Amino acid sequence: MARKNQMIALDVSPLANRKLGKYGLTRAQLNRLAPRVKRIVTRVERERGDGGHRYRELPHDRLMRQAVEEFAKALRPKTQNLVVLGIGGSALGATALHQALNHPQYNLLSRRKRGGPRLFVMDNVDPAHFAGMLDVIKDDLPGTLFNVVTKSGETTECLSQFLVVRNLLTRRLGREEAKRRIVVTTDSHSGTMRAIADREGFASLPVPDGVGGRFSVLSAVGLFPAAMCGIDIKAVLKGAAEMDDMVRSTSLQRNPAALFAAVNYLYYKKGLDLSVMMPYSNALSGLADWFRQLWAESLGKARNESGGKLISVGPTPIRALGTTDQHSQLQLYREGPNNKLITFLEVSRFDKDVPIPKAYKDQPALSYLGGTSMGKLLNTEKQATEQALLASSRPCMTIRFPSVSPHAVGQFIYMLEVATTIAAGLFGVNPYDQPGVELGKKITYHLLGREGYGNINALMHRERHQT
Amino acid sequence: MARKNQMIALDVSPLANRKLGKYGLTRAQLNRLAPRVKRIVTRVERERGDGGHRYRELPHDRLMRQAVEEFAKALRPKTQNLVVLGIGGSALGATALHQALNHPQYNLLSRRKRGGPRLFVMDNVDPAHFAGMLDVIKDDLPGTLFNVVTKSGETTECLSQFLVVRNLLTRRLGREEAKRRIVVTTDSHSGTMRAIADREGFASLPVPDGVGGRFSVLSAVGLFPAAMCGIDIKAVLKGAAEMDDMVRSTSLQRNPAALFAAVNYLYYKKGLDLSVMMPYSNALSGLADWFRQLWAESLGKARNESGGKLISVGPTPIRALGTTDQHSQLQLYREGPNNKLITFLEVSRFDKDVPIPKAYKDQPALSYLGGTSMGKLLNTEKQATEQALLASSRPCMTIRFPSVSPHAVGQFIYMLEVATTIAAGLFGVNPYDQPGVELGKKITYHLLGREGYGNINALMHRERHQT
Repeated sequence: MARKNQMIALDVSPLANRKLGKYGLTRAQLNRLAPRVKRIVTRVERERGDGGHRYRELPHDRLMRQAVEEFAKALRPKTQNLVVLGIGGSALGATALHQALNHPQYNLLSRRKRGGPRLFVMDNVDPAHFAGMLDVIKDDLPGTLFNVVTKSGETTECLSQFLVVRNLLTRRLGREEAKRRIVVTTDSHSGTMRAIADREGFASLPVPDGVGGRFSVLSAVGLFPAAMCGIDIKAVLKGAAEMDDMVRSTSLQRNPAALFAAVNYLYYKKGLDLSVMMPYSNALSGLADWFRQLWAESLGKARNESGGKLISVGPTPIRALGTTDQHSQLQLYREGPNNKLITFLEVSRFDKDVPIPKAYKDQPALSYLGGTSMGKLLNTEKQATEQALLASSRPCMTIRFPSVSPHAVGQFIYMLEVATTIAAGLFGVNPYDQPGVELGKKITYHLLGREGYGNINALMHRERHQT
Repeated sequence: MARKNQMIALDVSPLANRKLGKYGLTRAQLNRLAPRVKRIVTRVERERGDGGHRYRELPHDRLMRQAVEEFAKALRPKTQNLVVLGIGGSALGATALHQALNHPQYNLLSRRKRGGPRLFVMDNVDPAHFAGMLDVIKDDLPGTLFNVVTKSGETTECLSQFLVVRNLLTRRLGREEAKRRIVVTTDSHSGTMRAIADREGFASLPVPDGVGGRFSVLSAVGLFPAAMCGIDIKAVLKGAAEMDDMVRSTSLQRNPAALFAAVNYLYYKKGLDLSVMMPYSNALSGLADWFRQLWAESLGKARNESGGKLISVGPTPIRALGTTDQHSQLQLYREGPNNKLITFLEVSRFDKDVPIPKAYKDQPALSYLGGTSMGKLLNTEKQATEQALLASSRPCMTIRFPSVSPHAVGQFIYMLEVATTIAAGLFGVNPYDQPGVELGKKITYHLLGREGYGNINALMHRERHQT
């Protein structure tokens, strides 16, 4: 029982509120979907060791975790700056873990207070952004470690960053020392970055087979930067493993991943094709951003119908932040088109609350605030926003965190990964591919003169016949 | 002519691409809307000195600008940390200017390299977030200035932050010195914060009458923090004034604000109710976030139809980032439902480009990158993404910045503010109110026991009869 109390929980009860009218969700609607969900969960559990499902085993991979921990333990003392070179799934997980579990002003703290190196996640090839990072680390290159993260080993953005950094390190530190300042996280067997790492002797960490970029946060991709910055990755994985016990269940009542997927699917079918994730916690907003990729890239697909017809499916995930977006998006959410399902993330207990002192007894706009706290105000505003949304028939539900702990974050990540797999079953799409991004890559190669990409018309033509 | 070349420009030509099919926009469709746009622009220009339109005069308010500059000049030398206490329109403009025009790692630079104080924009009442800021400034309270920003003077989040900070300053520095560490930006005449500032003698800057929170970035609200951190606010305002010359035109061809509004409106009518703003520039992503509030809160409305019926209107603005979101959202944008109009922001010239060195001639995934630059790669990927979107009939257009300069940023801000006013005319809504957020505020007051808000049913009932 004690353990159960420490689990994050999905609360869908607001969806039964009678104010929602036709935008409510009845038990009967859920029950009608339950047999399909049951079949999907049964199939997914049967296949969990295979193909793209293999992210499911990461929480139980003790050897992987120990390798990451030992690596981090050895490198941490001499590292003042850790720069992650990666994009998409190679960056979002590390950023989300860091934002959730480290100090909000981590990079500004002294080394002693931080415990680990400063962290820079370079998830773009914007020259101003990249040069800005170089400005602050260039005077301590011997204390800077670059983590080159690319699952495929082929990602243009990451390889460009690598070329810049390798050149800089070699010029400034010499070839041998340069090598020691680079750690590669990539596929264990294949890809350009794997070949280079093996040939030149860069230290490297593997991305296990079958684990795609957006499902890789619980592998070395997300865990190595986290461990370097002092996050308890053992507790993160333990949380994920606890969630694994729950998401094996074929019952919608007991499986929060299945319930989250089912509710989202049913609302999409009702025409609410936007899925807003709105944490009332700055720490959790990186996780909402991570989820935005997971949901969009896994479910936004052209599905083959019988007769060769293609239809486009997939909810559009949106990241919001409470209370901040009450002053930016709430007007639209309440009075604009009723096309959004809102999932709040709520934190029951803040480790460090800020009391609001009493003052200005004569000012009605201030006096009622005295004696409460920021944490209480934040959660009260969440409750008020929920009631206001329900009053205008806008559906919403809540994922509740007991606190923002490594445990809870691990549970959350795993729950949403499995929810994505189950939702893909409902939407009838493959959650693990991304055929829609290939053409843009090929056109980039063509425009930059890469060999083999000279004939743009042939590339375009091939794509039309593939999809 | 030289000046014209330095203007940002809206390029809608991709919308005429034949690959778009029924998702294209014809000249005839625009021409049909042109007379309505002309009437709206004419009316708006006639009324520009009145009511909510008064933000239009900010670029020409030399006295306001000089007051802000003098204030900043006097306070800057002794200020090591500037903390903005504000939310929504009181925070987004300052953040956007800072992100666009200051160093990407500004707070990590030395004081000499920064030129101004470190900047912390506290746009929430998250206790962990707020305590995190206090951790890094608390050892230098005498060098810290708090800018309390609330147009109405009544905003719960801002007033709570103020209570915490005032108490801390008074305890640590004494009542008189505490006063000198607070600057209030609020309505010139009314509201709780105005009353307190006048009574207690806080320094203060006015928000001009008729300028609402989300249209206030070019007032002291956005300009004071900008000037404190070394941004050339005169150039920002000059850019806005130059744009004012263009957006007075009643011709869609000559008025980029009218064109942006018209295109967005026509696509909304076609059923594409999501408006994605996707800068290929990290610096510009804060402006996309600022636009997200402007567009959502101004246009997301319940509109009164004849017969007292209410209908919900308003596009949902979405912020994306290139190239980053090519690895997160592009799969959905290309293959998911065709419900998004995408506006790219493109930078023609980066002040500080990063060359990509040649290496690995034997590796086809790397060799073609050598000799190009990050800036060129970024813009090539933008072009490739555009072509890939068009190939799957997804409409997109581009706002092109000659460079990320104070001039261009001022132009952009003003163009989108005026576009919002014109779009509101097309959608038939008032861009300057936000009735949908009132109920949530009242429920918060009720839950926290504020006097006069005891009867929640009466509050709910009143709202139903007002909207």
